[in-house]
Amino acid sequence: MSDLKLTTRAEDFSEWYNQLVLRAELADYAPVRGCMIVRPYGWALWENITAALDQRFKATGHVNAAFPLLIPRSFIEKEKSHVAGFSPELAVVTHGGGEKLEEPLVIRPTSETIIGHAYAKWIQSYRDLPVLINQWNSVVRWELRTKLFLRTLEFFWQEGHTAHATAEEAEAETRQMLDVYTDFAVREAAIPVIPGRKSAAERFAGADQTYSIEAMMGDGKALQSGTSHNLGQNFAKAFEIRYLDKGGVLQHCWTTSWGLSTRFVGAIIMVHGDDQGLILPPRLAPFQLVIVPIFKTDEEKASVLENAHRLRRELVDAGIRVKMDEREGMSPGFKFNDWEMRGVPLRMELGPKDVAKSSVVLARRDRPGKEGKAFVPQQGIAASVKQTLDEVQKALHDRALAFRKANTAEPADYGEFKQAVEKGFAFSWWCGQGGCEEKIKDETKATMRCIPLEQPGGSGKCIYCGAAAAEKAIFAKAY
Amino acid sequence: MSDLKLTTRAEDFSEWYNQLVLRAELADYAPVRGCMIVRPYGWALWENITAALDQRFKATGHVNAAFPLLIPRSFIEKEKSHVAGFSPELAVVTHGGGEKLEEPLVIRPTSETIIGHAYAKWIQSYRDLPVLINQWNSVVRWELRTKLFLRTLEFFWQEGHTAHATAEEAEAETRQMLDVYTDFAVREAAIPVIPGRKSAAERFAGADQTYSIEAMMGDGKALQSGTSHNLGQNFAKAFEIRYLDKGGVLQHCWTTSWGLSTRFVGAIIMVHGDDQGLILPPRLAPFQLVIVPIFKTDEEKASVLENAHRLRRELVDAGIRVKMDEREGMSPGFKFNDWEMRGVPLRMELGPKDVAKSSVVLARRDRPGKEGKAFVPQQGIAASVKQTLDEVQKALHDRALAFRKANTAEPADYGEFKQAVEKGFAFSWWCGQGGCEEKIKDETKATMRCIPLEQPGGSGKCIYCGAAAAEKAIFAKAY
Repeated sequence: MSDLKLTTRAEDFSEWYNQLVLRAELADYAPVRGCMIVRPYGWALWENITAALDQRFKATGHVNAAFPLLIPRSFIEKEKSHVAGFSPELAVVTHGGGEKLEEPLVIRPTSETIIGHAYAKWIQSYRDLPVLINQWNSVVRWELRTKLFLRTLEFFWQEGHTAHATAEEAEAETRQMLDVYTDFAVREAAIPVIPGRKSAAERFAGADQTYSIEAMMGDGKALQSGTSHNLGQNFAKAFEIRYLDKGGVLQHCWTTSWGLSTRFVGAIIMVHGDDQGLILPPRLAPFQLVIVPIFKTDEEKASVLENAHRLRRELVDAGIRVKMDEREGMSPGFKFNDWEMRGVPLRMELGPKDVAKSSVVLARRDRPGKEGKAFVPQQGIAASVKQTLDEVQKALHDRALAFRKANTAEPADYGEFKQAVEKGFAFSWWCGQGGCEEKIKDETKATMRCIPLEQPGGSGKCIYCGAAAAEKAIFAKAY
Repeated sequence: MSDLKLTTRAEDFSEWYNQLVLRAELADYAPVRGCMIVRPYGWALWENITAALDQRFKATGHVNAAFPLLIPRSFIEKEKSHVAGFSPELAVVTHGGGEKLEEPLVIRPTSETIIGHAYAKWIQSYRDLPVLINQWNSVVRWELRTKLFLRTLEFFWQEGHTAHATAEEAEAETRQMLDVYTDFAVREAAIPVIPGRKSAAERFAGADQTYSIEAMMGDGKALQSGTSHNLGQNFAKAFEIRYLDKGGVLQHCWTTSWGLSTRFVGAIIMVHGDDQGLILPPRLAPFQLVIVPIFKTDEEKASVLENAHRLRRELVDAGIRVKMDEREGMSPGFKFNDWEMRGVPLRMELGPKDVAKSSVVLARRDRPGKEGKAFVPQQGIAASVKQTLDEVQKALHDRALAFRKANTAEPADYGEFKQAVEKGFAFSWWCGQGGCEEKIKDETKATMRCIPLEQPGGSGKCIYCGAAAAEKAIFAKAY
């Protein structure tokens, strides 16, 4: 399928995205409306994402566990804002083992409630705190408008859930995990993100404070790419998560939760992809380099393949993820297009002349055509490849950052603001009132993405009402 | 909790098991009947199991993917034996997003059907074969009698699903994965298993042939610890999984599936555990060694901890998984018991005298008391620890094998057979008739566990009916 040209991004960004996901074989539609199958290539990418995050979670003292998929419906109702937020999206199990259940169960839309129930049982004393648990799983939310990776009924994610003795510790944890997400996005995915605070309207159902990382997609829209919530004592009170402090006084805990999902795969696609297909950041790519051997005669084939396998072994031994494309009955050109569609960051072409000269051609996925091609000696190939992969990684980040900067305006007035959010982000003073936020949304379809942690300082006038404003916020249309 | 003594295995094996799972903090009961929470320590063990298996799956050419949790109920009904086997155990989602669904969905009890549907779409030609996909997830089966890890409504597992061009390839795959499970059980978990073929009565619903690995638990009962199914063309026909062969003829594929679940954690507990608690095989233990520093004065504390951390660093650098127990307000004796309950294979005790002599005490979990203690010089500590861990790993396997042999009889007649299955395994000639199998089950509660691949050769008389028998089978009471 991948020899067909994609609809271009300029023609129809949404259609380009849908075609790319299917043709790169990242995911497919499931027989149940709104569900997705993550295909092996997409799952290999997700596995690299999970490994990079999991390492960071463990380095910050977290451990993994597994809580059940099924939650009594009454649990969801224990926290007031939580039930309001999630009730409309629940999948309900009414029958089990051929019989009607006494109490319906819901498939977890998120696990604050069932984990709150467990923490109430496990936590007795200040000695048991903090509890720092994460889980990798899938959750179900009954979304109406769905799109592969970006919004599906079932999606895959991690959800961290922590309990602390003090408000300060919970806030520090919430911010630490936002930093972890930021570091992951920038270093691993080459996606520049803006970490910031959500408005009250955009908060997680049941949180005192929600933070997110926001990224700009290739069409100028925003994608919330990870969230970290300070839940205050809301769930601790609803589920009686309490501890005896050092003075023997019973206190409610302070809890947090934070998550990053397969949506992030959508971010990678829409930030880095081009009209030829996917472009993967080398640090997360399932294959960092593909070797395409080129030959005509049997004699050429023997010597090219022998050389190719030797190079492959050398690269694999150096820790590089290599794919050797030995498929028969396909031209090198077809293979080039195929791997371009799948976004492999680096291609090695090896023909009889290269063997003779003991060199190879390295072609960078991020720079199409001759500009991205280099003749490289086989001697020291692993070092050359590593260096080039580092260069691709950096170039992808820098390009995405330049694009975001070019499409982020600081409008002088509401007229300019309306133009800015047609194209990208507007970074504007905001009075902090939900009324202005809501009117902006109604009139422009742009939402308040976040109040960036990094602020210019000083003060200004609200872009909508003109009242005094202490902070600037990012407004944008969003996925 | 772990300072309390367990009920002994001799007193009540089942109660010993339940207490151990809770006190070692491997798992806990969930608020929904029959569901479990796998706690961080249990999940760390499962993560090591998954890593050891996943590596083997990838080495044999498999890739991971993720198929949806929700399956249209009609899918389950497409394969006749499959629906008969799984219908009574289904959890049914009837409502989503506040509305009644047109067609009820089931939570996957296993994924042959939804994967069959996808394979029918993806597979066109012999060039697309074989398809070798595995997924790690959880499934739901509405079990009535549940027990943590051994039988829960939701359990965690991997399910491999492959499609092939020929019957021979499918059978080779089925057998290869049985070998993978056997190798994993023996080498990683130190559990000697018997790989064999299931009887028709014990086959997976929809399989032509089921193979399993069977292990003997500490009470002499059998536990089916992994299964590999040759599905023939049953699912290929039900879901129209077809390919064009080299001659351009449309053929049905041959498919397999194979799985190993969190049940296996139950096997580890029941094979290796003793009256002091869990004993983990070093290769799978979350912590292979725990360091317990011992001191009284502040001066002793400073020098012991300094030494302990230096040793810890040396061991970690050598790739050993180390836990340093610096908890305050707990005696060394309490800590010893606590880590014995949790089954850490090796304990390092370090007090002021050890520091002075530049030695440590290593205590093996599998040999309680003085017999398992050794004074070991700190010089070359990593090599000493590695060697001791290897010895523990081997000793656990050898002990389990000796136990199984001691409790496996080759009864001369049905009278001896009935005695044998009260104590352990009976390895007996069997005519292969379901009638004998059923009567044995009714009269002794022992089931046909498997017909071992390794056979003595020759022939004999069926242990039940006396008719000519070509194969010997393992009969036992089972979990």
